[in-house]
Amino acid sequence: MRIAVCLTDTKAEPWVQGLQAALPEAEVFVWSAGAPQADHAVVWAPPQQLVDEQPQLRTLFNIGAGVDAIMKLRLPPSLQVVRLDDAGMSVQMAEYVCHALIRHFREFDVYEAEAREGRWVYRKPQARADFPVGIMGLGVLGQRVARAVQQFDFPVLGWSRSRKEMDGVRCFAGEARLGDFLVNTRVLVNLLPLTEATRGILNRTTLGALKRGGYLIHIARGGHLVEEDLIPLLDSGQLAGATLDVFQQEPLPAGHPFWHHPKISVTPHASARTLRSESIAQISNKIRALQRGEAVAGVVDPERGY
Amino acid sequence: MRIAVCLTDTKAEPWVQGLQAALPEAEVFVWSAGAPQADHAVVWAPPQQLVDEQPQLRTLFNIGAGVDAIMKLRLPPSLQVVRLDDAGMSVQMAEYVCHALIRHFREFDVYEAEAREGRWVYRKPQARADFPVGIMGLGVLGQRVARAVQQFDFPVLGWSRSRKEMDGVRCFAGEARLGDFLVNTRVLVNLLPLTEATRGILNRTTLGALKRGGYLIHIARGGHLVEEDLIPLLDSGQLAGATLDVFQQEPLPAGHPFWHHPKISVTPHASARTLRSESIAQISNKIRALQRGEAVAGVVDPERGY
Repeated sequence: MRIAVCLTDTKAEPWVQGLQAALPEAEVFVWSAGAPQADHAVVWAPPQQLVDEQPQLRTLFNIGAGVDAIMKLRLPPSLQVVRLDDAGMSVQMAEYVCHALIRHFREFDVYEAEAREGRWVYRKPQARADFPVGIMGLGVLGQRVARAVQQFDFPVLGWSRSRKEMDGVRCFAGEARLGDFLVNTRVLVNLLPLTEATRGILNRTTLGALKRGGYLIHIARGGHLVEEDLIPLLDSGQLAGATLDVFQQEPLPAGHPFWHHPKISVTPHASARTLRSESIAQISNKIRALQRGEAVAGVVDPERGY
Repeated sequence: MRIAVCLTDTKAEPWVQGLQAALPEAEVFVWSAGAPQADHAVVWAPPQQLVDEQPQLRTLFNIGAGVDAIMKLRLPPSLQVVRLDDAGMSVQMAEYVCHALIRHFREFDVYEAEAREGRWVYRKPQARADFPVGIMGLGVLGQRVARAVQQFDFPVLGWSRSRKEMDGVRCFAGEARLGDFLVNTRVLVNLLPLTEATRGILNRTTLGALKRGGYLIHIARGGHLVEEDLIPLLDSGQLAGATLDVFQQEPLPAGHPFWHHPKISVTPHASARTLRSESIAQISNKIRALQRGEAVAGVVDPERGY
């Protein structure tokens, strides 16, 4: 069995070593043009050339949760794409969202600014009933985020393509219910996969439908947000602020207005990093299962795109 | 039945109105010298004079969780002191602690500083196994905080005067086990009541016993911390930082070194505000129960002091 590793913007060597140690029976190597034919590939944003030159490939294992970069390729029907199930990412997402949510709700950013000036000033507490949190995307990540937010007694809503049920979460499904979901949401958390159906889903219409003083926490993919729509919504007061981890262009270009807008917090696509050892353990277990002819979790449906 | 309201640093009128509406059979008034004899009093940091002039008082209801200001008074043995059980405070404490913990662990303060300079820089993720969180005080507030922290998969330890058990929390009890608790803790959360046994419990010895690079989240009472011990521990690197909500003197005086120390975050005793309507509902229910001769929760043990 041969395993090719092809990672854009990520050092491949530690992955090759880790996979080789976990699967001593395999030959693990860094892919390059003209490399031997592999059975499986471990990839991040691979080029079309990898797929074209490797007709024997059975599986592409993506080392992130979002497979949008792979789904843009032309893939033969025999090639299945497998996402990471979680591998330590969902807890990071839950942390990121709860930090941004609490920071906004409790106005800890304002307290910090006051403290920098040496001022001891109370702020009137806000009512959490006025801050319903709506989560777009209720897969493994969205469900973990919802449970963490529930710990803090916020009303929680969820929206997903197909119907989901979660205790204590008011669930909406499908495009027809998106409007209902949005008008009942104040803090919007985006965890959707990026597909043709979700590209540009955060725009002046949808963000404008949130409760007045809405807040956006955006940790999925830059392509979800129509960036030029955001600042007018902030400047008009329709939105109170936004915490953004992903952007149309990454790194976010110097001089982009998001860097210095007073109501926007920017992080460098850091909401959840792939944890190498957890991911290698998960992928090598799945490779063994596939070799035994078993099914594995996380297989992408090419129709849905995730 | 008469109910006196005596609140230092808090407007009494809304409390009088709320209690009167909840207990129409009672006569509710703002206490002042020479006021009629009351059966119960609703208080915050009352003067000795209230107790001395009201020998018929059966109960002092404190509108906060900490009763240290009352326990400094000379109280007749017949007068019982009742704390708020929770009344919306524990969720605020959980928010405060999780915000400070995640902010430190994920280095979101560093990301913010980088973003202010327009810099897109990843930081290597830290391992949560290296950040055991130790909670001092495992009453209603401490247990709620512990459960919230557990959501984020940190190892959680607890220390309390009397033995407690909590699923997934490594519990230590009594002074003899304090050292064991501290050497296994990296992020120390203080939620203890302030009593003669706990005054000054955060000092160079105890904070110096934490794992190297420790972090202090202090939301109980200023009297717990020997303030002059903190900065040397930060400057030596023994402690990586501190988030402080309470101080020996409040408001924290202008020019106090805590205001501008780069490793200290100051908030103005805002970790959990008393929520008036929840508190009035709880106190009026307890008054009705006492009038029926029933026992109520939250009665302070004068020996323990909380």
